[in-house]
Amino acid sequence: MAATISMGQYLFKRVAELGNEHVFGVPGDFNLALLDELFKMPELKWLGTCNELNAAYATDGYARIKGMPAALVTTYAVGELSAMNGVAGAYAEHAGMIHIVGMPARIVQKARLMLHHTMEPGMDHEIYVGMAAPIRKTFTVLKDEKTMAQEIDRVIQEAVWSRLPVYIYVPLDVAGVQLDAKRLETPLKIEVTNPNKEVEDEIVKATLDSIKTASSPAILADVLTIRHGGKKFAEKLMNLTKFPTYSTPLSKGVVDETSPYFNGLYNGEVSFDGVASAIESSDLVIDIGPVHSDSNTGGFTRNITDDHTIILAHNYCQVRGKKYEGVHFLPVLKRIVEELEKDAAKYDVLNKKTWKKLEPPLLNDSTSGPIAQSFIWQRIGRFLKPGDIVLAESGTAQFGMPDSPFPENIGYITQTFWSSIGYTVGACLGACVAAKELKRPGRVVLLVGEGSLQMTVQEIGSYIRFGFKPIIFVINNNGYSIERAINGPEQTYNDVSMLWDHQKMLEFFGARKETGIASKSFACKTVEELEAVLNDEAFNRADYIQVCEVFMDRLDYPWRLYTQVNVTRAKNAKAAAALKAAQ
Amino acid sequence: MAATISMGQYLFKRVAELGNEHVFGVPGDFNLALLDELFKMPELKWLGTCNELNAAYATDGYARIKGMPAALVTTYAVGELSAMNGVAGAYAEHAGMIHIVGMPARIVQKARLMLHHTMEPGMDHEIYVGMAAPIRKTFTVLKDEKTMAQEIDRVIQEAVWSRLPVYIYVPLDVAGVQLDAKRLETPLKIEVTNPNKEVEDEIVKATLDSIKTASSPAILADVLTIRHGGKKFAEKLMNLTKFPTYSTPLSKGVVDETSPYFNGLYNGEVSFDGVASAIESSDLVIDIGPVHSDSNTGGFTRNITDDHTIILAHNYCQVRGKKYEGVHFLPVLKRIVEELEKDAAKYDVLNKKTWKKLEPPLLNDSTSGPIAQSFIWQRIGRFLKPGDIVLAESGTAQFGMPDSPFPENIGYITQTFWSSIGYTVGACLGACVAAKELKRPGRVVLLVGEGSLQMTVQEIGSYIRFGFKPIIFVINNNGYSIERAINGPEQTYNDVSMLWDHQKMLEFFGARKETGIASKSFACKTVEELEAVLNDEAFNRADYIQVCEVFMDRLDYPWRLYTQVNVTRAKNAKAAAALKAAQ
Repeated sequence: MAATISMGQYLFKRVAELGNEHVFGVPGDFNLALLDELFKMPELKWLGTCNELNAAYATDGYARIKGMPAALVTTYAVGELSAMNGVAGAYAEHAGMIHIVGMPARIVQKARLMLHHTMEPGMDHEIYVGMAAPIRKTFTVLKDEKTMAQEIDRVIQEAVWSRLPVYIYVPLDVAGVQLDAKRLETPLKIEVTNPNKEVEDEIVKATLDSIKTASSPAILADVLTIRHGGKKFAEKLMNLTKFPTYSTPLSKGVVDETSPYFNGLYNGEVSFDGVASAIESSDLVIDIGPVHSDSNTGGFTRNITDDHTIILAHNYCQVRGKKYEGVHFLPVLKRIVEELEKDAAKYDVLNKKTWKKLEPPLLNDSTSGPIAQSFIWQRIGRFLKPGDIVLAESGTAQFGMPDSPFPENIGYITQTFWSSIGYTVGACLGACVAAKELKRPGRVVLLVGEGSLQMTVQEIGSYIRFGFKPIIFVINNNGYSIERAINGPEQTYNDVSMLWDHQKMLEFFGARKETGIASKSFACKTVEELEAVLNDEAFNRADYIQVCEVFMDRLDYPWRLYTQVNVTRAKNAKAAAALKAAQ
Repeated sequence: MAATISMGQYLFKRVAELGNEHVFGVPGDFNLALLDELFKMPELKWLGTCNELNAAYATDGYARIKGMPAALVTTYAVGELSAMNGVAGAYAEHAGMIHIVGMPARIVQKARLMLHHTMEPGMDHEIYVGMAAPIRKTFTVLKDEKTMAQEIDRVIQEAVWSRLPVYIYVPLDVAGVQLDAKRLETPLKIEVTNPNKEVEDEIVKATLDSIKTASSPAILADVLTIRHGGKKFAEKLMNLTKFPTYSTPLSKGVVDETSPYFNGLYNGEVSFDGVASAIESSDLVIDIGPVHSDSNTGGFTRNITDDHTIILAHNYCQVRGKKYEGVHFLPVLKRIVEELEKDAAKYDVLNKKTWKKLEPPLLNDSTSGPIAQSFIWQRIGRFLKPGDIVLAESGTAQFGMPDSPFPENIGYITQTFWSSIGYTVGACLGACVAAKELKRPGRVVLLVGEGSLQMTVQEIGSYIRFGFKPIIFVINNNGYSIERAINGPEQTYNDVSMLWDHQKMLEFFGARKETGIASKSFACKTVEELEAVLNDEAFNRADYIQVCEVFMDRLDYPWRLYTQVNVTRAKNAKAAAALKAAQ
């Protein structure tokens, strides 16, 4: 190893150390010198997207599949600001992101030159740094050569521990600054630990005791379990305890749904029959990695009382009402699993607890006629194969897919909490890259409405450019149906252009005879047509990129969507009445 | 008039009062109730774009053509954050924007519910309000029913006075709150005035004296002249004084270029031969509405000394070195023009000042072969007709169009200061809407590189959806040539997908036989092919939407681009050497 290494390469070595093999972003004159350093490194490749918001989405999708914070590179002002919504989504849903932003050279900043991408004469060039404050865990502006390396390490480590976005600002002139390469011999400290071992002991012991004594226990594995690297431990916990285990709309697929211990998706009153009563009547719920947002709790109708619950969250743990602030669930969960594994016989009693496994209903057994919301999502679930990655866009897909039965090992991406439409089209690109790196056995399946697709459609061109072959289901239902369900079903503000020809989309973006890139596009207006596609062997093989456009009624909503809307309306009416009465 | 009016309608009445006939944006559940109010008003129409960044660009483009702040509506978090780069651009270039953001209901905010689009449990719902602080002049969150109307008025008035973006945050439950309608009988105070009349007198008098006494005077009408509504006064000043008058890269078209008094585009060392020496040797430069940014001053090579200059800026005036802070140029300029008009005979002496008018060179008189950067922009200038609107995208178009001769009454839109690529594709939509409202006689001509187009391409679909017929020149030169000129000409990070088929673009987005929407697409690789298109009568008539794709060499740059890059490199090298010497 050389005695020194450029700042740029140092940074990207650290990014690669997390398991990243690609960096996403858009070039701009303030990050080109930094990219030159990246391009000297064989272990990390650049993937340029069409715009920065999509780059953020792609980074987010990549990170979710890889299970580690991923890197996004944008340029000063125009780039970093364009990415903000995508970064904020990664914050809300703990995707893990290292946002690296090119800035003007230090001397130029000092002189406050009125460069392009600034806004006023004499403006502090760091003004945009402040704008991102609420959507990041921490940040550094690399100005001081003496502390650059340690700052990079500090910030990236915090990204891993928190799974929240972090920012590294790189002035144009520092990319080539030589840093001590020896520091790289010490790996980053990326393991999550809790400072107070005794507190951890207490939580572990209390949980194990509860596991032993509970008579009708349950596990609720929520989405931060996955984001913080706890998926395998949650699955182990399920298999060791044999407790009935539940997912949520956000965490669907967190445990193998074909397991005898998986007992359904819990979403408050917006759950399949029997699910809510089963989990809510448990005398112990181990609630791991929770996100108690509206659409992840059936519009705040989750009804699990604290005295029956052990919450293992990313920033606190709570045992039957006793809260331990600042304790991360991951080391706790690991230890619980280790204890159970160590002494499986001792916990054998658990096996004897009996419970009745719930089977999800078949909502609609159509074999012909129009394609209904009650039909399509379960049908797509049956289309899935082990190892597939599925992305469900905000909108009907997001509210429909919780109905869908999953085979094992599905990588499921949805953004039910942040809910930015268009997200999955970018995230799908990142998922494709990650799937390839990980040599995942399955396909990448994108489920997106035509309105959401219009937000970020250019990235379809990136799938083709980089040789990816996702299966893209375009739900064409004439506008923003999720909004029609909420307000103004007939208002034209919920319309989008119905003139796009999705059958020509792949062709336009590059899959044509003369480019030698194969593709296939299908249009389905009936169940028969859809069945023909879904049963087609070549379609299933997905050897080339495909579009399956599904035409559906614009006023047909998934039952979970209208149920949540009704629940929320009733709650709002009640709150308004209470407020009025109090006045 | 009814005694009360809903808050939503009150707001939109005020927006309409500025001359707005359209509001741009994207619906989201937190702004739908507000949009319901908008939809009750015949005088203001909704125009939904594909995404929020594009909506911001469209609003900006519309405002630039209409000459008044325009309104953008987005939804909480996901929407407002997506628009940020577009709003910041409107800030930098004083486009004028009223950004109206839907928020959760007040009661929900108070309870800090963990709604979708929030990020954490217990989060203050106003957290995003703070993020926009640097990119707005002022804002209001409409929570207090007693002050809502006056707050709306205050914020909109500041938008007009400053031409900077302002924010109005509308909680979901306030759109229908009833306000006193009588207040609407008092029009907004939108006229810009200076508080100190004596200071104004002093500046006006000093300027008039200078106009009388100068022996080699000049007028430099920069872009804020246009943005702040001073274009007609600048033109009057030119015509009354008959002084040689100059534009800048940002202000091109500010005065009629066919006038005998227009003497060229001044951009420091990056000007046509003779221009810099002519203006720089003047003993009086009246510099109106300046933006002294890098690309608007030839990389900071503007060389006009204070002692010869009267600067009339939007936030100060300066007479030969004497600075008057906080004085807006518009009332000053108006009064100067009034004085000159009042007593034209007294100023007749001015007519006797002689100066030699400069003629721009013809850079390239190709009649055949490949299409060069030195050829195309002047050729497009000759293609333009009075009344056309032209949008030049950041990149080669932006650096090429300063070479281009303009007929009279061209609406020119470029974003040379903020320089966000993809901007013009959204701005073009707004320009089309404005052109139609104003019944402008000309065509809308978009000049965009294929890399920039990929950023925001979906809005081409909006042109078609809403029946607009711009002429779209796509400069297809295989990547980000502006970046190749700056760094890494052969680096693949400057590549973009070359697989898109621009000849099929209009078809994909909706112009097809079965939709009944006509279009035409051309591809030109040679001057002959381009001439055939530019001379085609039907192409010139632009009765339908058209694409003219122009293939150009990826390493061919406009001379202004490489000259500015070289100027900047030399400056940087000099600064670095000085810094080293000082150490």
